[in-house]
Amino acid sequence: MNLFYYPAACSLADHIALVEAGLSYKLLSIDHEKKTEDGRDFLSINPKGYIPTLEMDDGTILTENQTILTYIAERSGKLLPKDGLLRWRTLEALAFMSSEIHGNYNPFFRDYPEPEKVRAREKLRKAFAILSGQMGDQSFLLSDEVTIADCYLFWALMAAPRSGIELPENLGNYFDRMKVRPSVIRALAEEGLG
Amino acid sequence: MNLFYYPAACSLADHIALVEAGLSYKLLSIDHEKKTEDGRDFLSINPKGYIPTLEMDDGTILTENQTILTYIAERSGKLLPKDGLLRWRTLEALAFMSSEIHGNYNPFFRDYPEPEKVRAREKLRKAFAILSGQMGDQSFLLSDEVTIADCYLFWALMAAPRSGIELPENLGNYFDRMKVRPSVIRALAEEGLG
Repeated sequence: MNLFYYPAACSLADHIALVEAGLSYKLLSIDHEKKTEDGRDFLSINPKGYIPTLEMDDGTILTENQTILTYIAERSGKLLPKDGLLRWRTLEALAFMSSEIHGNYNPFFRDYPEPEKVRAREKLRKAFAILSGQMGDQSFLLSDEVTIADCYLFWALMAAPRSGIELPENLGNYFDRMKVRPSVIRALAEEGLG
Repeated sequence: MNLFYYPAACSLADHIALVEAGLSYKLLSIDHEKKTEDGRDFLSINPKGYIPTLEMDDGTILTENQTILTYIAERSGKLLPKDGLLRWRTLEALAFMSSEIHGNYNPFFRDYPEPEKVRAREKLRKAFAILSGQMGDQSFLLSDEVTIADCYLFWALMAAPRSGIELPENLGNYFDRMKVRPSVIRALAEEGLG
């Protein structure tokens, strides 16, 4: 499988998940002219033009972060229980982080006008407070077991300083613990961020 | 199961899915003071304060539209194949519609300043063009088989006029076909929109 990515972008979640799942993968970056590292036109691979984008061995293209994370989990049989409440809490957390956190980073990533940033910060504070409450003193977001929600949350916490908000204490401690997890160390190093 | 909803809101997708799946459910609306139709404080049920919210028979609460739709499908064994490409295309479409369509309706639903509406309309046009290309001349969004993505798309198309954009022709025709589908007729009637 090929994972198209930008260093430190939200594709880092999928990258960490691939390592955690023990699947083999190749990373392919995209340049400013939307050419892939192996010389192809990225827009002809994914007309949406954004990452993460997963190219399976048979050439099938899969897009959308939550979907790629779920695919990695179901294909490997890891990081997402097949049934039971932890399955639903994990998928719920992915959807929540996508709309309430990732969606509210856009004003900072794209430098939208200040009133939009103020509104987004307010929403981010609420969203992180909810995640903080869910985590409590567990090892990972939803239990003492790592899931794909943790892969996405690690990226969300890494990107948080760009929004200028302060993180709840348990999330800050969790971020420090995750940073030294072998999968995270490896993924960061492979993206040139080690 | 109880589905907390507002008439014509995005909980309509889950409502249609419950009918399509043949699951039994009870609808509970929420008033302006966040009291549920059966007299409870909605914020104590779902502290996020938004719908759709699903209350299972054992009292477990599930939130996030995509997650509730996926739960309805997996519980009933309908509307989402267990594996294969249609499964991934369905989950991908849910995630795409959540961020690129639903997310871009916010400036209209919440009456944000005009520049935000202009930007959102541009993104909505692009997103609907992608969905239009995916549908082509199929009966449903992703194949000739109905999935939970169609439940969400029907609501997205019903809400589209509030953004002032024009829909691609095949999506307009699809909306007209869906409107006379028994599950949709029943769900609209039950929400007082028949």
